[in-house]
Amino acid sequence: MSTHQLDTKSQAWSALFSEPMSELVKRYTASVFFDKRLWQADIDGSLAHADMLAAQGIIGAQDLADIQRGMVQVRAEIESGSFDWKLELEDVHLNIEARLTQLVGDAGKRLHTGRSRNDQVATDVRLWLRGEIDAIALLLVDMQRALVHVASENVDAILPGFTHLQVAQPVSFAHHLLAYVEMFARDAERLADLRRRVNRLPLGSAALAGTSYPLDRERVARTLGFEGVCQNSLDAVSDRDFAIEFSGFATLVMVHVSRLAEEIVIWMSQNFGFINLSDRYCTGSSIMPQKRNPDVAELARGKSGRVVGHLMGLITLMKGQPLAYNKDNQEDKEPLFDTVDTVKDTLRIMAEMIGGEVAADGTRSAGLQVRRDAMERAALRGYATATDLADYLVKKGLPFRDAHEVVAHAVKTAIGLGQDLSELPLSTLQGFDARIEADVAEALTLSGSLNARNTLGGTAPAQVRAQIARHQARLA
Amino acid sequence: MSTHQLDTKSQAWSALFSEPMSELVKRYTASVFFDKRLWQADIDGSLAHADMLAAQGIIGAQDLADIQRGMVQVRAEIESGSFDWKLELEDVHLNIEARLTQLVGDAGKRLHTGRSRNDQVATDVRLWLRGEIDAIALLLVDMQRALVHVASENVDAILPGFTHLQVAQPVSFAHHLLAYVEMFARDAERLADLRRRVNRLPLGSAALAGTSYPLDRERVARTLGFEGVCQNSLDAVSDRDFAIEFSGFATLVMVHVSRLAEEIVIWMSQNFGFINLSDRYCTGSSIMPQKRNPDVAELARGKSGRVVGHLMGLITLMKGQPLAYNKDNQEDKEPLFDTVDTVKDTLRIMAEMIGGEVAADGTRSAGLQVRRDAMERAALRGYATATDLADYLVKKGLPFRDAHEVVAHAVKTAIGLGQDLSELPLSTLQGFDARIEADVAEALTLSGSLNARNTLGGTAPAQVRAQIARHQARLA
Amino acid sequence: MSTHQLDTKSQAWSALFSEPMSELVKRYTASVFFDKRLWQADIDGSLAHADMLAAQGIIGAQDLADIQRGMVQVRAEIESGSFDWKLELEDVHLNIEARLTQLVGDAGKRLHTGRSRNDQVATDVRLWLRGEIDAIALLLVDMQRALVHVASENVDAILPGFTHLQVAQPVSFAHHLLAYVEMFARDAERLADLRRRVNRLPLGSAALAGTSYPLDRERVARTLGFEGVCQNSLDAVSDRDFAIEFSGFATLVMVHVSRLAEEIVIWMSQNFGFINLSDRYCTGSSIMPQKRNPDVAELARGKSGRVVGHLMGLITLMKGQPLAYNKDNQEDKEPLFDTVDTVKDTLRIMAEMIGGEVAADGTRSAGLQVRRDAMERAALRGYATATDLADYLVKKGLPFRDAHEVVAHAVKTAIGLGQDLSELPLSTLQGFDARIEADVAEALTLSGSLNARNTLGGTAPAQVRAQIARHQARLA
Amino acid sequence: MSTHQLDTKSQAWSALFSEPMSELVKRYTASVFFDKRLWQADIDGSLAHADMLAAQGIIGAQDLADIQRGMVQVRAEIESGSFDWKLELEDVHLNIEARLTQLVGDAGKRLHTGRSRNDQVATDVRLWLRGEIDAIALLLVDMQRALVHVASENVDAILPGFTHLQVAQPVSFAHHLLAYVEMFARDAERLADLRRRVNRLPLGSAALAGTSYPLDRERVARTLGFEGVCQNSLDAVSDRDFAIEFSGFATLVMVHVSRLAEEIVIWMSQNFGFINLSDRYCTGSSIMPQKRNPDVAELARGKSGRVVGHLMGLITLMKGQPLAYNKDNQEDKEPLFDTVDTVKDTLRIMAEMIGGEVAADGTRSAGLQVRRDAMERAALRGYATATDLADYLVKKGLPFRDAHEVVAHAVKTAIGLGQDLSELPLSTLQGFDARIEADVAEALTLSGSLNARNTLGGTAPAQVRAQIARHQARLA
Repeated sequence: MSTHQLDTKSQAWSALFSEPMSELVKRYTASVFFDKRLWQADIDGSLAHADMLAAQGIIGAQDLADIQRGMVQVRAEIESGSFDWKLELEDVHLNIEARLTQLVGDAGKRLHTGRSRNDQVATDVRLWLRGEIDAIALLLVDMQRALVHVASENVDAILPGFTHLQVAQPVSFAHHLLAYVEMFARDAERLADLRRRVNRLPLGSAALAGTSYPLDRERVARTLGFEGVCQNSLDAVSDRDFAIEFSGFATLVMVHVSRLAEEIVIWMSQNFGFINLSDRYCTGSSIMPQKRNPDVAELARGKSGRVVGHLMGLITLMKGQPLAYNKDNQEDKEPLFDTVDTVKDTLRIMAEMIGGEVAADGTRSAGLQVRRDAMERAALRGYATATDLADYLVKKGLPFRDAHEVVAHAVKTAIGLGQDLSELPLSTLQGFDARIEADVAEALTLSGSLNARNTLGGTAPAQVRAQIARHQARLA
Repeated sequence: MSTHQLDTKSQAWSALFSEPMSELVKRYTASVFFDKRLWQADIDGSLAHADMLAAQGIIGAQDLADIQRGMVQVRAEIESGSFDWKLELEDVHLNIEARLTQLVGDAGKRLHTGRSRNDQVATDVRLWLRGEIDAIALLLVDMQRALVHVASENVDAILPGFTHLQVAQPVSFAHHLLAYVEMFARDAERLADLRRRVNRLPLGSAALAGTSYPLDRERVARTLGFEGVCQNSLDAVSDRDFAIEFSGFATLVMVHVSRLAEEIVIWMSQNFGFINLSDRYCTGSSIMPQKRNPDVAELARGKSGRVVGHLMGLITLMKGQPLAYNKDNQEDKEPLFDTVDTVKDTLRIMAEMIGGEVAADGTRSAGLQVRRDAMERAALRGYATATDLADYLVKKGLPFRDAHEVVAHAVKTAIGLGQDLSELPLSTLQGFDARIEADVAEALTLSGSLNARNTLGGTAPAQVRAQIARHQARLA
Repeated sequence: MSTHQLDTKSQAWSALFSEPMSELVKRYTASVFFDKRLWQADIDGSLAHADMLAAQGIIGAQDLADIQRGMVQVRAEIESGSFDWKLELEDVHLNIEARLTQLVGDAGKRLHTGRSRNDQVATDVRLWLRGEIDAIALLLVDMQRALVHVASENVDAILPGFTHLQVAQPVSFAHHLLAYVEMFARDAERLADLRRRVNRLPLGSAALAGTSYPLDRERVARTLGFEGVCQNSLDAVSDRDFAIEFSGFATLVMVHVSRLAEEIVIWMSQNFGFINLSDRYCTGSSIMPQKRNPDVAELARGKSGRVVGHLMGLITLMKGQPLAYNKDNQEDKEPLFDTVDTVKDTLRIMAEMIGGEVAADGTRSAGLQVRRDAMERAALRGYATATDLADYLVKKGLPFRDAHEVVAHAVKTAIGLGQDLSELPLSTLQGFDARIEADVAEALTLSGSLNARNTLGGTAPAQVRAQIARHQARLA
Repeated sequence: MSTHQLDTKSQAWSALFSEPMSELVKRYTASVFFDKRLWQADIDGSLAHADMLAAQGIIGAQDLADIQRGMVQVRAEIESGSFDWKLELEDVHLNIEARLTQLVGDAGKRLHTGRSRNDQVATDVRLWLRGEIDAIALLLVDMQRALVHVASENVDAILPGFTHLQVAQPVSFAHHLLAYVEMFARDAERLADLRRRVNRLPLGSAALAGTSYPLDRERVARTLGFEGVCQNSLDAVSDRDFAIEFSGFATLVMVHVSRLAEEIVIWMSQNFGFINLSDRYCTGSSIMPQKRNPDVAELARGKSGRVVGHLMGLITLMKGQPLAYNKDNQEDKEPLFDTVDTVKDTLRIMAEMIGGEVAADGTRSAGLQVRRDAMERAALRGYATATDLADYLVKKGLPFRDAHEVVAHAVKTAIGLGQDLSELPLSTLQGFDARIEADVAEALTLSGSLNARNTLGGTAPAQVRAQIARHQARLA
């Protein structure tokens, strides 16, 4: 075993350096306190690399065995919490390699043959992110299932559909929830698309130019489950597109969550009173004894700021960077880690708050409580069926633009009388257009309006039930 | 024909309104001066809608014929510039519909049956964007071809590969350019992925809840070439995910452009002098007569700010919006239009500046001029082959970590002598490690270093040529 | 007069260039179509520069007279619309200078002595922005006056104050509006602070290093009303801090507007119905005849996205730029222009919508209409006076934390009974704590609650009136 | 002492709640693990509040004494690390208050009289931030001193001044560094401006509406050193402008740092070689033994992304929030904390790296090492004195625009000959314009060029020395 020890070298990078790194610099440039989270990916990547080095005859079978034995020990130490993470060793990679070398000697030093920290860290981040992507994909399914579950119980609950937060037309509450299912389904599509781009192997690119050792990169890719190999070494070590693309995905998830959260907050407000949330998702006030606040929804809405901030940070980071690896890139990790944590926690908590907690047998505790009466009462304010009256007139032969104008007059009159359109006497309605007959009554009810919108994507209960069935099949 | 005219209605929204819109409000809320760009999509969408209305018997054959005839006229007027765009008519949709009604009477008024501006504008934007996506896809191909072209002529040009802008290892200039081909190829992948999500039909969702007319949305989708139909009306009219996803794509394109532009600016600087640009891509100075500035590259780098700004704006726009359509959404268009224009112009100009202008017969004018001598001279500074010496020692049996340390000593000595490693006498080198022999000379040359990195993705000319062939086949 | 003409030089930057700029490049790099907006600042700056050149004997008195005469003509042409803006002349500066030289010959060519476009454009933008800052300062006053006006008429209107959009405590509607006055007042402070940093003269810095002509920069500063002179030429030509700082200010203005707009939208929603807006600030729907939408508020809220996007773009632009001027900087103008326009339009329209239009004699048309009954009814829901009961108990000797708990029990009981606290019989209340006596009734009324919060910054009408008086004096 | 304990209440917010908070919600909504950093501000604020409550007779003298005694104990426990922070108690405020109550009983429960966590947290954050602002102000002074120090030793070092990274005109290296002093001086101005807006007291606003206790808010403000009192309770509890304004300031600091860092990275690159950095600010490579990388500068540049990301996150957070406090606001703290940490660390490390570490006696260790020869050699490339030749001709009577053209011809010829302008024979120069005489030689030297730019803000050594003196006086 050689006399040179990694942990003394860390005092001064190499013989080239005449003084050790300043303490401040050590702290400023170190990443071990956040990147140690990558330890499993780092060990997996190292083992796959060592396996290939041995298969290619670059290291000996005994070296491989030593490395494998050492890594078992390292893994155990990390899992048990006894591993001694050292700031002096800067990052997760050097910490693990230094400990390995301590444990198994020269074999540990041979592990770094044909690779560099540049391709190593790129590989670790991708491996780790791939696992998180798969976890998030499941959480997106849970989120959709929660929404579909509540929708399935509220097909006939009538909500005033809003545009501009003004009463527009009656919609099924289920239909409204399914709009969010569409959003999260698109998020899942995007996630599947970007996973392919994450799942490519940079290892073997070495520092920037490839290596002079006869590596078998395809073998490493197979061992680690990568779908492909990065085809250009300069790109492989400097590419952080996947982090930006993932953050873009995460931002859209959070935009969707923030929209849903905004609605939950509004619906919970006493003036709406459309829903209620379980106590365990609410908080009180230290001063106002009557308060039950939808803190979770507000915080979820607020956390969209955090995620979009990370996206902007990552873009700023990469903008204008010359090739290949620059130290700026180290700043990719904290925003990425925090983005993953935020998206996971937020999806989990929102899914539970809405759909209830799912027990092992698939049953659900109470989630969002729907106040159908309040919703329906609200739908009766605001002349939600005015469009139905116009459509009624069109079917009687009036051009739509003219029917629209006739109804505007009728609404104006009804406002003056403080009545809904359905409350106006037939004779009054006929005063606006003689084509109006007794059958108008059905058109002016909420359920009549709902049932009428019976085309693909519309709010008629028949359509909504079909959509629920489609989603249930898709998410099964 | 009814007496009600659309252009008078615009004075006051409907009978419901007792006073006309304030002039300031008219200007503040109007979009016609930027959304008239959507006119072709608007007409195409209207014709497909009318065709379906007639097929379903919702309007008569004569109505359809009138609408088609009127639209021919409208189209001609817009193309000839004689169309009178009116601020009073707020947006492109009302302007076209009002003119149509002027031309063909009641049929024009029937066109809006079963749709709303909410689903109409969503359809128009998607149709328009789909066309721009296809144009950008071609420009991405041009960009890659330009890079591959210059690469194909510079496989043997040796550039000092940098990490941290410090000389790292020699690389083929072609290899360096191909790193950007990888980036733009990923952009093209992302664009193809998001196109699927853009290419879905919102029309038929009406204002928010669907419609009571028996529409055939699948027919409209087929007519317009959409791959699918938006399945939820509330989502269809309020979704702007596609705009955000597109902007995220565009941001990554511009991040890649900004990195390449940064390198071009650095390479053009007299202290590097690695390349030259044609005069027609440079500007001078009004005060310094000697200046030839790479303005195009700098401006392209700067324009990344614009595009990421639009992304941020769009996200801010959508964050926390309750369903369904809110007027905030109107703010999606200007950033999207400007993003498309910026990406198109930038890709075109960068591709031409680098690869030359492509004539009809496929020949190219002069593009980026490569100064091989300057690149190679620079590669000889900075001990670019130090890693090769370490690898040489590893092959002689030293663990890599120890070889690294030996070479650091050698470099320190060479710096003191003001010489490159290849200039040190063999005996001096042997003083650092006795295993060094005469065959070290080859390892220390630039071309020896280059040729050695002969694994997949590495910079060895053999690898680079294989990559060029792959790209040429892919882009053919 | 020399034979060299500026407009031919534009064909090829100087003798150094062997080919003219490509058409695409001309368009890509030209700024005249947006920077011509700076024409007045450009002429003012040029006249001040010429005046100083003559005073210092650098140009002759006749040259100055010729330049002044020529500029009168140029100004007239621009104002009348007859000025021929040429893309070939790239920007506002060369367009004006070329026309001047055409009109007055060599004197025009002497104008550029001792300056460069780098310091010229920096000066123009600062001059222009200073004017816009002063305009915005007035609009911020108008905005505050509008709010104070409505507040002054609604001191006794009782709104349910919300936290978490849950009823918290009753507040005066005036008090609520005055919260926004505080925000806009802070904006005005920030604007005054940053104006000092905008109002410094870069001119005289020439291209980057200063000039060899004996300029009197202080004289130019005095002529143009600048408070100081930029002390470092490299900084002067490359600094865009002022644009970023202004955009940061503008973003905060728009964040405040977006919060107010959000509330207006919520208050207008039928379920709240707290306010109404004049028809001229509302829009209808092309499909739903009953709609009156608060489009202006929504659009104002949406436009916050645009402004924060520009801020992000400007930051991205400047990040990592080496000194001194780079072409990237040209990208500062469009976002800055659009930010100024957006803030001005938005403040004006919001002020009018809320406070009414102000006639020449200071009278106001109807603005925001307050529905006191609806507000008060809402305040009676949600146990808004629960804190008052707790405070009542504290005054009777209970520690606050215990009083809080007692009241929670009372609220729980009241919810069960479907009654407000004020509706519970005294005996029931005494069941929760024996210290409760008949005088509790006053504490439980809305007005009692309001009046009780009579400390500085509190919502008691007495406090609110004092604040209104303070603001009126401040804004007079 | 009452039987009600704060730590049991945390199990369910109050009697109103029928089930405890879910574990997931507890973790999602808790802030104690990051907001405990505010503990000193929290205790200071509580003591000032208690002091005022006693002075106003709201609590007794014994209560005050108990609270003061308890807080001494709490402070000691926190400082010694023995304080038991509990997730169940959600945040720093409840943790401290609960422990206080445990220690001193009912007096602890009386502390919260007349305040709420809403005004408490707003007060704590402002107090804490004010302290950090003062620390950053000192670091900005250190940064400026470091730059002025290196400048003072390099007035005569000649750097090629760049625009567009092309050689433009020679400048003093000191002049170049002083450009950054201007930037950091502006940052300091902005910081002083915003400090006034941070330094206002929200306490006394209670939950949102003020309080019914006769508080003396001015007294609390005086005790805590606030310059003023927030005048509107709704604004006071919901305002986060100060956090956004501070982040805007921090972003500009980081933009300035990133520009300086970019230059350091470029200057360190072997092709420039203008400077060197001490080993203790460089890192090596695990694979390339010759590497000395300017990691600190790169990381500082990269960290600008983090700070602008936080700014964007905060803006997103506040956009569109209705009054008053919403839980979203809790998300203000982590970005603010990280921004403060990043700015402080970055300023400290950059100042040391450039100006050396300052010993207690004011002496400095070696900082940035300037390679004057390399700078000067580079300035001789690129025809840096071409403008001087044009200016020379203007002084001989040629209009500037014509002189510019003459020199362009001369440069073209010189490029062809591979010579600098100063190397061309006089007769050759006279071929371009007969007015050129022997005295042109001085104008064409670097030092002649430098000395010529002797107006305010110019690069002439006399000007630069005057600026250094000004800065030294200002920073003393």
